[in-house]
Amino acid sequence: MRNIALRLAYDGTRYHGWQLQQNARTVAGAVEAAVASVCGGAPRVTGCGRTDAGVHARVYCANFKTDCAIPSARIPYALNSRLPPDISVSSAFDVGDGFNAVTSCVRKEYTYEIYCSRIHDPFRAKRAYRYPMAPDIDAMRAASQCFLGTRDFAAMRSAGSRTKTSVRTVFYYEIESQGDELRFRVCADGFLYNMARAMAGTLLYVSEGKISARELPGLLASGDRRRAGPTAPACGLYLTRLWYNFDE
Amino acid sequence: MRNIALRLAYDGTRYHGWQLQQNARTVAGAVEAAVASVCGGAPRVTGCGRTDAGVHARVYCANFKTDCAIPSARIPYALNSRLPPDISVSSAFDVGDGFNAVTSCVRKEYTYEIYCSRIHDPFRAKRAYRYPMAPDIDAMRAASQCFLGTRDFAAMRSAGSRTKTSVRTVFYYEIESQGDELRFRVCADGFLYNMARAMAGTLLYVSEGKISARELPGLLASGDRRRAGPTAPACGLYLTRLWYNFDE
Repeated sequence: MRNIALRLAYDGTRYHGWQLQQNARTVAGAVEAAVASVCGGAPRVTGCGRTDAGVHARVYCANFKTDCAIPSARIPYALNSRLPPDISVSSAFDVGDGFNAVTSCVRKEYTYEIYCSRIHDPFRAKRAYRYPMAPDIDAMRAASQCFLGTRDFAAMRSAGSRTKTSVRTVFYYEIESQGDELRFRVCADGFLYNMARAMAGTLLYVSEGKISARELPGLLASGDRRRAGPTAPACGLYLTRLWYNFDE
Repeated sequence: MRNIALRLAYDGTRYHGWQLQQNARTVAGAVEAAVASVCGGAPRVTGCGRTDAGVHARVYCANFKTDCAIPSARIPYALNSRLPPDISVSSAFDVGDGFNAVTSCVRKEYTYEIYCSRIHDPFRAKRAYRYPMAPDIDAMRAASQCFLGTRDFAAMRSAGSRTKTSVRTVFYYEIESQGDELRFRVCADGFLYNMARAMAGTLLYVSEGKISARELPGLLASGDRRRAGPTAPACGLYLTRLWYNFDE
């Protein structure tokens, strides 16, 4: 049986996230329907992670097993002709039997996109978070360095998460500023439920002087979600990079 | 009575163009509802032009008359809180009694946005036209210069136009190329029905060798719409610049 990996992108606005759910439109549901139509059968498609409702992916990886003989180079075109305009497959390739889009993924980068404006932009609606104030970038940069390294991120996790440990390793947290745009890029070996959005909301609280960079280490150590900033809106969040271990 | 001009932007995807129509959602309808709510009464809002269904405006101008006393600097915020996310007002100012958004407009620039890719991009769906081939930019640049000057553009006009003359003056036609993106910027004193889209479709025919730059002058002189290229899809077209005569 072949194991096929897909590289996808999607605008998450219309979807209740990636993960299949009863009575909800999900990206996985749309992709599985397209895969079934192209490859036959009813293959289960494994995605690299659950994104929340409204979260986007500039890059996403999924895999599925199939007996179909269609050459991998033709799969993107076949799938795209059956996918809605807000989901696309840019490449497909045969991978080893042990490859699994979720368990073989060793690092991910999320980018939180903000534009700072008192006026909403019709072309960035649902694609970025509009922040109506002037940001204190230096304060946020200083605070963001507290996120680095291996630590317990319980204070950055929303309720509803079922993972056993809340220890994760953050490899970098970069803040880019250009014109009215602000981007927070964070890379980790894994993300707790709403972790990237809680980090963004906490940094905006730092910008507003509601949390200081000095108190952030203590806040993180406390594991108390209530002391951190709010979960920033889903529309600003993009999955932007993936690292895979192909040795398995 | 005050005469107030608005500077707007909108994503035209969900609308049947600017102009008020029975039983159709239009940008003018949404703006008039917001103006009535903020300023009272039922002011008619005059827009700088009819854009087609699905056409966008990075900049658009409209004016209306009102007795309300709200300072012009506050009007954008008041209107934006009542407008949907795909329409925004960036500024409002009191203008002379003779100012009319359509008749005082002396030049407009439309930009036709294309991306060249065999794979559709979820983030550019409905916001640009996907062209699946490699464009011949030199051929299109050469051909585009045939559009310049004062001439009869009947060959670039769709049926259904009710204007008396089809003579217009085109001031520039620029082709910008960056990465997979292609932009056609055209400035004229006025545009016939579908003229900017017919010009874009004709240049893409030139790129494909279906029309040569040499035969374009004869094609234009013939006034025969059937000899030109197709009307390019609405989703790629943006109103991007306006020139006003404030002397009236």
